[in-house]
Amino acid sequence: MSQPLTLEALNAASRAQFTALLDGTYEHSPWIADAAWAARPFATLAALKHALVAAVRAGGREAQLALIRAHPELAGKAMVARTLTAESSNEQGKAGLTACTPAEFERIQQLNREYNERFGFPFILAVRGPRGTGLSKAQIIATFERRLHHHPDFEFAEALRNIHRIAEIRLDDKFACAPALGNQVWDWAERLASHSEPGYAERDELTVTYLSDAHRAVAQRLAHWMRAECGFDEVAIDAVGNVVGLYHGQDAGARRLLTGSHYDTVRNGGKYDGRLGILVAMACVRELARAGRRLPFGFEVVGFAEEEGQRYKAVFLGSGALTGHFDLAWLDQQDEQGITMRQAMEHAGLCIADIPKCRRDAARYLGYVEVHIEQGPVLAELDLPLGVVSSINGSVRYVGEVFGMASHAGTTPMGRRRDAAAAVAELLLYVERRAAAAPDLVATVGMLEVPGGSINVVPGRCRFSLDIRATTDAVRDACARDVLAELDALCARRGVGHRLEETMRAAAAPSAPAWQARWERAVAALGLPVQRLPSGAGHDAMKMHELLPQAMLFVRGENAGISHNPLESSTSHDMDLAVRALQSLLDQLAADTP
Amino acid sequence: MSQPLTLEALNAASRAQFTALLDGTYEHSPWIADAAWAARPFATLAALKHALVAAVRAGGREAQLALIRAHPELAGKAMVARTLTAESSNEQGKAGLTACTPAEFERIQQLNREYNERFGFPFILAVRGPRGTGLSKAQIIATFERRLHHHPDFEFAEALRNIHRIAEIRLDDKFACAPALGNQVWDWAERLASHSEPGYAERDELTVTYLSDAHRAVAQRLAHWMRAECGFDEVAIDAVGNVVGLYHGQDAGARRLLTGSHYDTVRNGGKYDGRLGILVAMACVRELARAGRRLPFGFEVVGFAEEEGQRYKAVFLGSGALTGHFDLAWLDQQDEQGITMRQAMEHAGLCIADIPKCRRDAARYLGYVEVHIEQGPVLAELDLPLGVVSSINGSVRYVGEVFGMASHAGTTPMGRRRDAAAAVAELLLYVERRAAAAPDLVATVGMLEVPGGSINVVPGRCRFSLDIRATTDAVRDACARDVLAELDALCARRGVGHRLEETMRAAAAPSAPAWQARWERAVAALGLPVQRLPSGAGHDAMKMHELLPQAMLFVRGENAGISHNPLESSTSHDMDLAVRALQSLLDQLAADTP
Repeated sequence: MSQPLTLEALNAASRAQFTALLDGTYEHSPWIADAAWAARPFATLAALKHALVAAVRAGGREAQLALIRAHPELAGKAMVARTLTAESSNEQGKAGLTACTPAEFERIQQLNREYNERFGFPFILAVRGPRGTGLSKAQIIATFERRLHHHPDFEFAEALRNIHRIAEIRLDDKFACAPALGNQVWDWAERLASHSEPGYAERDELTVTYLSDAHRAVAQRLAHWMRAECGFDEVAIDAVGNVVGLYHGQDAGARRLLTGSHYDTVRNGGKYDGRLGILVAMACVRELARAGRRLPFGFEVVGFAEEEGQRYKAVFLGSGALTGHFDLAWLDQQDEQGITMRQAMEHAGLCIADIPKCRRDAARYLGYVEVHIEQGPVLAELDLPLGVVSSINGSVRYVGEVFGMASHAGTTPMGRRRDAAAAVAELLLYVERRAAAAPDLVATVGMLEVPGGSINVVPGRCRFSLDIRATTDAVRDACARDVLAELDALCARRGVGHRLEETMRAAAAPSAPAWQARWERAVAALGLPVQRLPSGAGHDAMKMHELLPQAMLFVRGENAGISHNPLESSTSHDMDLAVRALQSLLDQLAADTP
Repeated sequence: MSQPLTLEALNAASRAQFTALLDGTYEHSPWIADAAWAARPFATLAALKHALVAAVRAGGREAQLALIRAHPELAGKAMVARTLTAESSNEQGKAGLTACTPAEFERIQQLNREYNERFGFPFILAVRGPRGTGLSKAQIIATFERRLHHHPDFEFAEALRNIHRIAEIRLDDKFACAPALGNQVWDWAERLASHSEPGYAERDELTVTYLSDAHRAVAQRLAHWMRAECGFDEVAIDAVGNVVGLYHGQDAGARRLLTGSHYDTVRNGGKYDGRLGILVAMACVRELARAGRRLPFGFEVVGFAEEEGQRYKAVFLGSGALTGHFDLAWLDQQDEQGITMRQAMEHAGLCIADIPKCRRDAARYLGYVEVHIEQGPVLAELDLPLGVVSSINGSVRYVGEVFGMASHAGTTPMGRRRDAAAAVAELLLYVERRAAAAPDLVATVGMLEVPGGSINVVPGRCRFSLDIRATTDAVRDACARDVLAELDALCARRGVGHRLEETMRAAAAPSAPAWQARWERAVAALGLPVQRLPSGAGHDAMKMHELLPQAMLFVRGENAGISHNPLESSTSHDMDLAVRALQSLLDQLAADTP
């Protein structure tokens, strides 16, 4: 094995030397390194990667297509040997395609034919995956099948993204380095994802709702890692189930920086929504403790017990307890099995009487920051690993039910029905049209059910949920007003009744400028361009906004940033950058603190 | 107590005597008896009642309104005493309103005000109910609240129907008679309804799906009653769970008449759909056995285990076993809990290997008849207790699912969603429009669910069912073709996938003329007009049609004939007439059989 490459050597190289040193990073395409040379010197490996990505983006569609076509086809055993010529021998063993059965080989050949026919270029997949340890054959084939259905423009961009990912891993090999902090975060997240609820776990689906057994196991594991692996000074699970870790400052009475995110998930959700923000902060504390370093402020990391509003209609239970907005009336809410929140909390051994003690005194805190996976496509489309949140959209949620008249599907004439499901269907299509008609507005009927419906019964009841979000509260409220008026009107016309209950309302939350600036400096210090973007999703930061100045950092998601879905993903390289960005923010704050 | 009235006395009376003898049957409205006098002589009490009803129908709206207004208002304790002046003192005690709490009294006063304001006439309710034993206060108030929402024309007719029901009960008192056979059937049905599945039973809802504990309890009870109360010679529960009772003919080897209906229910269904047809036949056998009478043919009564297709997608399991159409592939179907039909049958101790033995040899049977509650409004609107089915509508059923892409409700722009629920909503509204556009056609999406849906997730999947029925197979098939084409088109437009599985297809089944004629003669023999009507609902007779000549008798339902709903109801008087009609059919067949 040759001597590892260094940034010093690259920065000092001639144009020809530079291109030669980076040979093989991009398949048969020396023009990329050649174009990136002008961007020297590179302060970080991330800056180098970004320059290479920027060169490809600037290269134009023809050069990009040539780059894609320079890759051999994925076609089983023989092909894999060819694809990986420029990669380390280590990579081959991890790629998962070296020992195909005849059936798998045939399936891949067939997918290849279909893919080429549809798109006109070969299927490109970074087979070493988001952690660099290799995808399984089953994962590779499933990805192939899924990507066959993409729009050609999207798939073209996806091919380039995979090429950049292959290059990123090849650069690690050249530089003999690895994203150790990001790998730690990735591995923690994977371990947490081993806990899922019955009915989902069997299908390898991740569902962790408030105070389920899986939820309590995740809390236990986080608390244990904080203590045993990270070196927090104080760790506790509070009265609502938040996992709270404190890393003392130089002075134990010093004001604190608060960070965190939630560890509950939606049903069949992703591994990183919420958890990433806890684990990134834990990785920072782990490094501080290993170095024996104390900051001039306390660092408090909270794994919020609940943000998603899945089991009960209340949301932001965890952060709400910190801001003093935990509504004790919530305790009487029932889940689908009729278990009240009070019963669930008592069953979990939580001290309900101590909930008011969770409330934080703003005077004792410097501010609140949160790292979160983007859950959207912006950063992926821009080929940027990190983005700085400028504000969080306002939202409102309802749960409702239409009451018609259950009757026999064979004997009730169409004109005499009071079909609750048809009324909700009409509402759903109105919601879809109304939201599409305005910019920066989304509205969703995510839950829809005819309870106890039968194939031969006209629905007498239909339950639904409604979620409306917009960049401003005014746009959100105008949509909500129209939707509610339409519900009244269509129910009157159809002779059905309804009830509708508002379960959540959150005002749009702009980031605190000073804190947003710290994130921006942190991103710049990593050698990356600063990208600002609003958050379409709600976050604990939205709740903490009521108590403290806040700002968020977004981490790029793979698969077009899909979230609330098992395809939600991020690479350990991007996670590594997120840890380094938070370290930078802590350093800036330390420098600012007298 | 005065001497009971007799038909002989009435038939021999002068017009004035006749009216005097019937005084009090209709509230302060001697014109009704006066008009009915012309229809003498009355062969049966049912014929007298029908003549009185016909007189009211012929009286015109103004006289009908005066009849309604002749009734005092229902207003708690004081009022009850007034309403019931003409009724037996016995009735007061059963009426449930004699001891109102102040809150109940206030509620009734308020309902009265609202009802009068809305309709311009007093609320009329036959407080002794469908069995003559009295409604509870809670039932009375609930009925009041429900009827407040009716259309004024409907409520006008409902008031007259209640007046006829009050008259019917008053005539029983005058004649000192009671519908003993119907009461027996009603009481059996009530006893069976005490068995319901967990999750429903607690809410007083009736749900008895194939091989649930409640289902097995109902089978056990039916088998026991057949043996111990009715005097059947052979009783067995067969390999699919059908309860089969045989009452031997004079010659044990004689051909048999087959009858029956199903004892499973839809979810939160009624007490009579299916069961009525079993119990009416049992009441006939009970009378035969008590009289020690043997018919010249065997009489086989089957309680079919399954007709509704609730737990598994297969339907007509019970009758299908008799016709030899039990598909062994059904055994691998899973219910919602993942329990296969095979597992459920083994758990219930059924001998799956013996299913083929359930098949009946058509040569050994005379035909198939079935009594069933109408499950529609026709007989109630015509004020007729019984109707003769001319044919059963053809039907087809599907279960389907749309596959979109689950994604974050806050971050996925409207234009980039692949919302499975929105696609199904669009289909549902198309189905509604398409079916409404043709006569004698109904189509229903009865099941609708976003599995594991969350308030903040764009639905990635949506399940639904589809049920299409029409008087002819051609009309049904044209609708199905259009709906399937629309599903394809809208899924393509929305970029979502779908699957659709046909789970049932039943051809329209016209009644066998000779058997329909027997029912018609039976109805006429009771002194009632013969009303023919098609069946919008499917029935076991539809399946038996494939093996034997068949014809059905319908029994009037209360509450506009609503079915697949807890409001499904029928009076013990109408049930009594159904038993007598089946007795008449047996007598006719005995006379025809050499």
